[in-house]
This record gives sequence, C-alpha cells and structure tokens, in this order.
Amino acid sequence: MIRFCALCGAPAEQAIPHGDNRERAVCTACRTIHYENPKIVVGCLPVWKDRVLMARRAIEPRHGLWTLPAGFMENGESAAEGAAREALEETNARVEITQLYTTYSIPRISQVYIMFLANLLDPDVSPGEESLEVKLVAEDEVPWDQVAFAMVRRTLRHYFEDRRTGVFVPRFGDIHPPER
Amino acid sequence: MIRFCALCGAPAEQAIPHGDNRERAVCTACRTIHYENPKIVVGCLPVWKDRVLMARRAIEPRHGLWTLPAGFMENGESAAEGAAREALEETNARVEITQLYTTYSIPRISQVYIMFLANLLDPDVSPGEESLEVKLVAEDEVPWDQVAFAMVRRTLRHYFEDRRTGVFVPRFGDIHPPER
Repeated sequence: MIRFCALCGAPAEQAIPHGDNRERAVCTACRTIHYENPKIVVGCLPVWKDRVLMARRAIEPRHGLWTLPAGFMENGESAAEGAAREALEETNARVEITQLYTTYSIPRISQVYIMFLANLLDPDVSPGEESLEVKLVAEDEVPWDQVAFAMVRRTLRHYFEDRRTGVFVPRFGDIHPPER
Repeated sequence: MIRFCALCGAPAEQAIPHGDNRERAVCTACRTIHYENPKIVVGCLPVWKDRVLMARRAIEPRHGLWTLPAGFMENGESAAEGAAREALEETNARVEITQLYTTYSIPRISQVYIMFLANLLDPDVSPGEESLEVKLVAEDEVPWDQVAFAMVRRTLRHYFEDRRTGVFVPRFGDIHPPER
C-alpha cells in the first residue's frame, strides 16, 4: 500500500485521476500518480537428454519443496534473459532458451508466470543460494507430491505429454489458489 | 526513481540487500526494500470474418497512428481479462479471447507485451476515449506505414502469414528500439 510519494515524500491519497477509471495513489503535493501493476516471474524447464532439471527450495514460500528455476524479472532484461539468469542463479545451470512454453496469470496475487523450454548446455549443475538441492530427474522420478507450485506442476505435465508427440505447444491459462 | 519510502515517507537509499546482487531502493528508517520490475502490456487482435480491428491513437505516444487495442495490465486481473478489458475501453469491442499469440520483451523500457488472438462477438465497434477512430480492415487495407508500434506490426504480419495455413503459432521475441 502506497502511503507516501516516492518522489517527494509527501503523503499520498487515493483518488481517480482524470481520464482513469480506478483509484490510484496520488501525491497530495506534486500530484504524481503511483501505479501498481502485476509482476512477472520468468523461468524455464531445462532439459538434458531424457531428464529435466528441478531444484528444492531453500527459501519461503514452500521451503523444501521442488520447483523449476524461476524468479522475478528485472528491469532492463528480456523475459528469456531473465529465465536464463534465474537458472544460473538458482541451479548454476547454463541454458539455451528454445521456446516460450507456458504463460499463467495468478490474479489473486497479481503475478504472471512466463516459462520457457531450455536446453541444458552441460549437466554440471549445483544448488545456488536459494536452493537446497538440484536434480536431473526422469519422468518417473518427478516428486509430484512435493511440487512447490501449480505452475510447475502444469508445466511439467504439459512437457511430458508433449514429449510423446514431439510437438511442444505453448499453453496459457489462469491459476486460482488454492491449486498447487 | 524511488527517493522516499512509500510506507513511512522517510528517505530511501540505494543499497544491495542481504542475499541480493543488485542495488535497490531501501528505506533508511523502516528498511523496507522497494523493488522496481517490468510492466506488462496486454492486448489482442480482434478478428471479424476476414477483417481485423485497428484503432487510431488519440493519446501520446504515437498520437494519430494505428494500433491494436492494448494497455497496462491491472492488479487483480488475468492477462486475458486485461486484454478483453482494453478492447472494450479503447474500441467498445466485445471479444472472446481464443489464444495467446505474441509475447515481446522491450528491455530498454522494461515492458513485456502479451498479445492474444480474439473473436469479435459483433461488428458494433466505436472509439473509446483513447482512440480517434476504429476500423475493421482487410489485409490489403492495413496502413503499414502508419502503424504505431513494432509489436503491432509484427503481430499483424504473423497473423496474416499464419492465416494462409490456418495454424496460428505463438511467437516470442525481443524488440530493440528504434524498431517500430
């Protein structure tokens, strides 16, 4: 919740700006409008032969559960660059992003997940600071009952499904908690 | 640029938070970290028979040039809901979103564009406050030399290309200005 102006420090008030149709935080002194918008999480599904790279979370939420490398996109990077950066930071994986794969909105928390398919360039991976453990898992080794997030579960399911046909179809959709 | 804390109004300083690797605005009083992240623009390409819906911009940037309905995604909505909302606000179009189509990152301005294909539910469209004019155009009527944005140009080109085969393949990529 924005209570003060980030530019001048004066108190902000909730008001509907001219030409707008919803309340924003508006500075009572310099009249700057402070918009709040959804955040993007970028990540990838790194593939090595018949295996995919998963990481066990060392941070909350879902500490100890398994995920795909992903995190908040930063200013100044592309979505694909951010996804490769997160793979490096969380799993020390060098990846080549090959295609956009799943895009999920989670309106309740105002986030959009953009997940890519990637080739792992070598199998030399290890936990970064945010991971307890990393593993290259075959389809029958995925810890389905210990997957951290619904977007990870859906992305993995689509991947193994598409792998049977060899055609990787980009998917989009919405996730409404408490789906995990 | 964040100079003051939005929560308590105290001055913010640039610092690398513990466990992070880049500078953020951190409050000197309450230590809140203020992250800045890319914004999402959602939109659609509304189709009516062999025509697509375009709008002429009544606002800057690119006042007077032609675009597809699109705008900043809002908190609490899904990407597809936002795209349908923008079509209604800018062109009074009622649309059914059918698929995710193009996803473009523009790192220089820290934006990601997510564009959907949509069916126009009826041809009764008219300019909203941000449009001067709206038009249902056939392929040979697209004003290519007056298109407002690179993402609109690329999305339209892919659409007419894919329409020849009937297979609409989602695309992703990056746009680096000054491409329009």
